[in-house]
Amino acid sequence: MKNFVSVNDVTNIDDLVKKALIYKANPFIDKTIGTNKKIGCLFLNPSMRTRLSTQIAAQNLGMEAIIFNVGNEGWMLEFEEEAIMSGTSVEHVKDAAPIFGKYFDILAIRTFPSLKNKEDDYSELYIKQFIKYAGIPVVSLESATLHPLQSFTDIITITEELEKMKRDSSINSGQKPKIVLSWAPHIKPLPQCVANSFAQWVNAWEKADFVITHPEDYELTEEFTKGATINYDQDEALKDADFVYIKNWSTFNDYGKIYESDTKWMLTNKKLELTNNAKVMHCLPVRRNVELSDEILDGPNSIVTLQASNRVWAAQAVLSEILKNNG
Amino acid sequence: MKNFVSVNDVTNIDDLVKKALIYKANPFIDKTIGTNKKIGCLFLNPSMRTRLSTQIAAQNLGMEAIIFNVGNEGWMLEFEEEAIMSGTSVEHVKDAAPIFGKYFDILAIRTFPSLKNKEDDYSELYIKQFIKYAGIPVVSLESATLHPLQSFTDIITITEELEKMKRDSSINSGQKPKIVLSWAPHIKPLPQCVANSFAQWVNAWEKADFVITHPEDYELTEEFTKGATINYDQDEALKDADFVYIKNWSTFNDYGKIYESDTKWMLTNKKLELTNNAKVMHCLPVRRNVELSDEILDGPNSIVTLQASNRVWAAQAVLSEILKNNG
Amino acid sequence: MKNFVSVNDVTNIDDLVKKALIYKANPFIDKTIGTNKKIGCLFLNPSMRTRLSTQIAAQNLGMEAIIFNVGNEGWMLEFEEEAIMSGTSVEHVKDAAPIFGKYFDILAIRTFPSLKNKEDDYSELYIKQFIKYAGIPVVSLESATLHPLQSFTDIITITEELEKMKRDSSINSGQKPKIVLSWAPHIKPLPQCVANSFAQWVNAWEKADFVITHPEDYELTEEFTKGATINYDQDEALKDADFVYIKNWSTFNDYGKIYESDTKWMLTNKKLELTNNAKVMHCLPVRRNVELSDEILDGPNSIVTLQASNRVWAAQAVLSEILKNNG
Repeated sequence: MKNFVSVNDVTNIDDLVKKALIYKANPFIDKTIGTNKKIGCLFLNPSMRTRLSTQIAAQNLGMEAIIFNVGNEGWMLEFEEEAIMSGTSVEHVKDAAPIFGKYFDILAIRTFPSLKNKEDDYSELYIKQFIKYAGIPVVSLESATLHPLQSFTDIITITEELEKMKRDSSINSGQKPKIVLSWAPHIKPLPQCVANSFAQWVNAWEKADFVITHPEDYELTEEFTKGATINYDQDEALKDADFVYIKNWSTFNDYGKIYESDTKWMLTNKKLELTNNAKVMHCLPVRRNVELSDEILDGPNSIVTLQASNRVWAAQAVLSEILKNNG
Repeated sequence: MKNFVSVNDVTNIDDLVKKALIYKANPFIDKTIGTNKKIGCLFLNPSMRTRLSTQIAAQNLGMEAIIFNVGNEGWMLEFEEEAIMSGTSVEHVKDAAPIFGKYFDILAIRTFPSLKNKEDDYSELYIKQFIKYAGIPVVSLESATLHPLQSFTDIITITEELEKMKRDSSINSGQKPKIVLSWAPHIKPLPQCVANSFAQWVNAWEKADFVITHPEDYELTEEFTKGATINYDQDEALKDADFVYIKNWSTFNDYGKIYESDTKWMLTNKKLELTNNAKVMHCLPVRRNVELSDEILDGPNSIVTLQASNRVWAAQAVLSEILKNNG
Repeated sequence: MKNFVSVNDVTNIDDLVKKALIYKANPFIDKTIGTNKKIGCLFLNPSMRTRLSTQIAAQNLGMEAIIFNVGNEGWMLEFEEEAIMSGTSVEHVKDAAPIFGKYFDILAIRTFPSLKNKEDDYSELYIKQFIKYAGIPVVSLESATLHPLQSFTDIITITEELEKMKRDSSINSGQKPKIVLSWAPHIKPLPQCVANSFAQWVNAWEKADFVITHPEDYELTEEFTKGATINYDQDEALKDADFVYIKNWSTFNDYGKIYESDTKWMLTNKKLELTNNAKVMHCLPVRRNVELSDEILDGPNSIVTLQASNRVWAAQAVLSEILKNNG
């Protein structure tokens, strides 16, 4: 693994999941592989779980993690080639990235989409420019269209739960689990990253019966969803589901809009009855009683804390792979 | 010690003071007890001494200290149960705290009062919700009504000074010192935390003659002051004092107001003559020539730097206790 | 070395350069000299390279580096003696600095000029107050009028390049290099720090033929430039230059203004032909196509990334010297 910006950087998902679960059982077994190595974590946008879990993962491997809030602590970066920089951006990524490449061994970056221009966001200019100019491995801490550390965590969590479900026979050992990604209401337009990325990973994993349900006009790009069944009827989609992943996203085709905020799309215990006692997932942060009801989040089917806690082991497995391949 | 949010979490104040003074003499004697342990320090409000001293204390014990500025680096948290989160808060403490509980071994939190609603502030909802949902030891870095690390530091500092005073016979060895907590003017309404907490600790310590002086209508809650003598006449209160603790606070009964800003309440060398050559204390930050005069702060009786430097040893003793009891 | 706030704190520039280059070759040879030592890095203004390189340098020496964004994470400091603090500043440097002196072994500070009042800025009140009251070694991370870590880096970089130039005979081994500091256009008034400091260091180094070129009325203070040739004709100045240092600064005499933004002052490949195939330097951040053209920055003569990467070794040599002399 050189960079980690999408599932395409992963040779074998299950092997990486195994590695993460080994770290979960023994967080400090590789405490020396990061000795004298440094990871620079650049935040162009806010972050909580991603920031903390990456920092902890690095420390578990003996690396120094240096956090830098671009904009807050520094200044605005420019990403366009040939820009005449007479505006608000103070430094070009072409000048900043090579220096990060000299200071650090791995560069991790969070950068959100504008949600204003689809072509710009989906070009992934920011993270691509960092990869082009940094000259060291780049890890996405969520980019304009994808959130691979989250999705990898999700697969780890599903793998763990699936083992339990097989042990207690709530699913047959030979059977593919049914995973449903369900759109949920929100009060403002959100990126498509988590949904895109989850779809990309579940499809690449090839071990689930995968259904995506959302209101009409909320279709995600086929680049990531291809292979999944799309169903506009949430009740139908939820039927016999083993895992339900709840997430809001804004419209893709007519980009960055909210058409629908009908609360009937919020998952409740009533709807959960349609499923095979499904585990409920969410990447967090979640707006309670808007995206997901208290009864679900505080109930026995929610595995959102498990998901979030697995973020550490996902990051640790990724950083470890990169360290080993780029020593 | 499980949590550290008030003096009630301390079994024996003098034992904890002794522990702090051992660390002061030998900062690195317990450099390994925090190996592979992590403290998450969450700041919902600004901090300087508390932030730095806690970070240093953790490092002295070999712990990783991870600083997170909630709001600045992340987003606003919700604390009300059953909230419908369609407003500005992005994540509920019920979802965030359990994850901090998975990421860290100890959680330290600073959260100020609103000074708008007494019942809300004095319910200590924020820190109680963190304790309820984090599932790991919680340390207050100042909460809505108390500042226990500051007060513990104050008792350490008084203990140290008292030893010196006994050695040079400026106080009889069998005599209780007279400690006066004096209100001081300020330009804006401040929390009651430091004053409440100092009163609570001095009362629990039971080793001083304790007087609180302030203008009428500035009474603090009896919950914390009970046991102290209240005197509205500052000159009378200061008489023969061995320690004078200067601090502004806003009104408690008619909550969060400033009625009085008469500069005659500011301590001067002239007033100090009423005392037994008293040591002058303040938690800092202090507005010079508003709360306290230059002549006092720059004079030989001020021990504010000693107080602030003892913050490290107070934090180190507390973290050490928690690590030992929750290993 | 006690403090590091200007070239005057350096006994022998070449010895310090050698030390930095030893660290560049072997970053971790002194990994234990900072054990249990702490550097506090206070940022009153934004920073990227300085912040990151100082943090890395400290870690390479085994020190804990604690970053504190004054203002952002804490509150505004007061620097004037005898201030009546009823305004926006919350804490006096007289109270804060001694505490930093207790918490840390070295204090590093970044503080920009106001560019409003020349006397105030050139009095260097802020950093002098920190030195006066902290009681521990103070390192400038750029102050109101100087940027010594940058200039030291620049001399390291010139030394390295000069060695290469001598090896490939692009300069005679006995010959002094010609170094030109050239003003460049910018969109807003900038401090004189980098230019002042570079002039001060090159003059103190005494190993170059040193020319400064800028539009009339952009004269820097003679305190720092004395010894250099001033030439208002950029083309004439550039003739046969071996190094061209590009930097904007605002006016000094009529303080903090921009009179001139003629783009003809921007260095281009055409102008570079006047030089002896000069290496082009800039401290970064640089506004592309305003201060410096893409063709220069992306061309073979630019050594700006080398300069920035040398920041680590400059900081490491300085911290190491201070640790050794103040153990």
